[in-house]
Amino acid sequence: MRSVSIIGVGLTKFGEHWDKGFRELIVEAASKAVVDAGIEGKEIQAIYGGVMASGRLIGQEHIGALLADQLGMNPIASTRVEAACASGGVAVRSGFLAVASGAYDVVAVGGGEKMTDVSAEDVATALGGAGDQEWELFNGATFPALYALMARRHMLEYGTTEEQLAAVAVKNHSNGALNPLAQYQREITVEDVMNSGYIASPLKLLDCSPITDGAAAVILCATEKLKQLAPNGDAVEIAASAQASDSLALASRKSMSEVASTKVAANDAYRTAGVGPKDIDVAEVHDCFTIAEVMAIEALGFFPKGTGGKATEDGETELNSTISVNTSGGLKAAGHPIGATGIKQVSEIVLQLRGKADKRQVNDAQVGLAQNVGGSGATTVIHILRRRK
Amino acid sequence: MRSVSIIGVGLTKFGEHWDKGFRELIVEAASKAVVDAGIEGKEIQAIYGGVMASGRLIGQEHIGALLADQLGMNPIASTRVEAACASGGVAVRSGFLAVASGAYDVVAVGGGEKMTDVSAEDVATALGGAGDQEWELFNGATFPALYALMARRHMLEYGTTEEQLAAVAVKNHSNGALNPLAQYQREITVEDVMNSGYIASPLKLLDCSPITDGAAAVILCATEKLKQLAPNGDAVEIAASAQASDSLALASRKSMSEVASTKVAANDAYRTAGVGPKDIDVAEVHDCFTIAEVMAIEALGFFPKGTGGKATEDGETELNSTISVNTSGGLKAAGHPIGATGIKQVSEIVLQLRGKADKRQVNDAQVGLAQNVGGSGATTVIHILRRRK
Repeated sequence: MRSVSIIGVGLTKFGEHWDKGFRELIVEAASKAVVDAGIEGKEIQAIYGGVMASGRLIGQEHIGALLADQLGMNPIASTRVEAACASGGVAVRSGFLAVASGAYDVVAVGGGEKMTDVSAEDVATALGGAGDQEWELFNGATFPALYALMARRHMLEYGTTEEQLAAVAVKNHSNGALNPLAQYQREITVEDVMNSGYIASPLKLLDCSPITDGAAAVILCATEKLKQLAPNGDAVEIAASAQASDSLALASRKSMSEVASTKVAANDAYRTAGVGPKDIDVAEVHDCFTIAEVMAIEALGFFPKGTGGKATEDGETELNSTISVNTSGGLKAAGHPIGATGIKQVSEIVLQLRGKADKRQVNDAQVGLAQNVGGSGATTVIHILRRRK
Repeated sequence: MRSVSIIGVGLTKFGEHWDKGFRELIVEAASKAVVDAGIEGKEIQAIYGGVMASGRLIGQEHIGALLADQLGMNPIASTRVEAACASGGVAVRSGFLAVASGAYDVVAVGGGEKMTDVSAEDVATALGGAGDQEWELFNGATFPALYALMARRHMLEYGTTEEQLAAVAVKNHSNGALNPLAQYQREITVEDVMNSGYIASPLKLLDCSPITDGAAAVILCATEKLKQLAPNGDAVEIAASAQASDSLALASRKSMSEVASTKVAANDAYRTAGVGPKDIDVAEVHDCFTIAEVMAIEALGFFPKGTGGKATEDGETELNSTISVNTSGGLKAAGHPIGATGIKQVSEIVLQLRGKADKRQVNDAQVGLAQNVGGSGATTVIHILRRRK
């Protein structure tokens, strides 16, 4: 397989875009990525798009073709991939494999979601499609309910507290306040979280990521062609791309207090990149709910099983601490426009490794990791990125 | 890029499955493909799934994870791709690229759709998502209407007649009558088609492919690993895989009487495989409507532009004529369970090249082609397969 690098990144503001549709958002993100890469659009040979529920949210399937059309890039191949909330990360991996195979030298990967134009009930139904329709959604389980079950189990087995979960949200809002593209750019306190209403006990409103509009894009290039095709780009190498699955329904898992697919994908990614958890300077992890970040930093090996809550409470995942986690603000504060999320994570790591993350810059970041989860853990996709010497 | 071969194929019966859900259908197809390949399920390293509108049709996104789960294959990576009616073909191409890249040696590609459990209106709305929601569906254009516009234009420019379109349906029903897995296994006449009611003039009921439940699967293997990993399989090589796009909305096209994306993908595929239209012994083309087959056999270079209708009427696309087209019965008679269709096409070509197509066998078939179209032509994916020496 050929080595693949990321030469450009582009994001829209994440938030409620009442004046922009899916099409406008994706064009904005892609245009920014192309400019950032220092290439011309005509150099792009294929497109991969990550979108979860466009059929339900905007009545539009066939998003691959829509992307090529809207970007004025016909007749190049353009393909949509979907893995629920991991759609963006899986799109990055699909673009990675396409370039690694030698089929294309330069590929654009974009993703986004327009979620605020439909009712909260319709969004909840669409999101429910990420879990097991027949065994979970049909029986009334919402996504907050599934993660609440995992939180309860983690609390039972390891003594994790609601205050520790709240510390995740507090830390991510602290980072989000430094990110001009984040949906929420304000700090909150543990008290704020504790006093917010229960959505699905023990998870409260401020334990949950929001409903968001937004789009993200990255441009990939074969590393061996960088000098020729992207001489102006500030390239970051993809040191590993890994993906794993688990049962769709939570009830079928061996353990409800860990995300097994993340452990499998992480082992694969660390082996491929030749690094371990201690080598990761900065990580974006999938904090759709605060408990998800706790389980992520354990499954990724940053902290021993059961200690993720305490580590967070102790400040070990803050900016420039033991390991800087979710410097973008994570899904919690930066927002979670589903198809965009996995691509935004990778984009944030690229900025960190370039040393261009401004106020939220991690000192001397050399190796970064992005972990994107679909559903309640049925899909995990992980990318490890490395600064080029 | 590594060479990739197909070592196993599996299909369910296509039709109305009142006693089986999406999950049962996909397991049946995948199991048949694994048995046909002569391998064990544990040898499969990744899954690609082609499904168009599961979110709307069965309330389930995250189909990649569902496939791995339902097939008992966790924790391997499993990814859904979607390109409207070309979802199956694009899934085959995604699997092809993954094996060609060297990331995996053996990959399963599956696809299917469960369409008969919802109302005809809901199906029409879901299918409309393959076109341009904002410019077509919102303004009342159904898919038969879009293809009717193309048919009218073809009739105007080239003198194509309704009887010539009918000849496509007659020929495909004739082939379908020889296929025990086809939805409709009975012959029809030109009179039958002409006397069926107009759906969108000039297209009548029997010019249209049906609503279908069904699933299909193929197993891919790196050609260099065939002896080691699939010594019992009857392998067929993928000589080319190509994909192209066009505008989502029909109104944005330069011509409404041809499928430009098919011409682009075909040129790419022929060049890669080192063959031309005259070398193709058997082809499965995307006849969602009869006019679509006429445009396909022209765009693929089998017949000059504008003569596809007459060639069909003259019997030049019948079984063992000038070129055998849609020996399976095509979408028209074999049925069109959307995500399964592109995979079924490839499966039919594999059977033909193996010499195992029974009563519908093409004599001495050496090279075959499958053309799968999304929407009204916004995506085309083409595979050329070759019998191994």
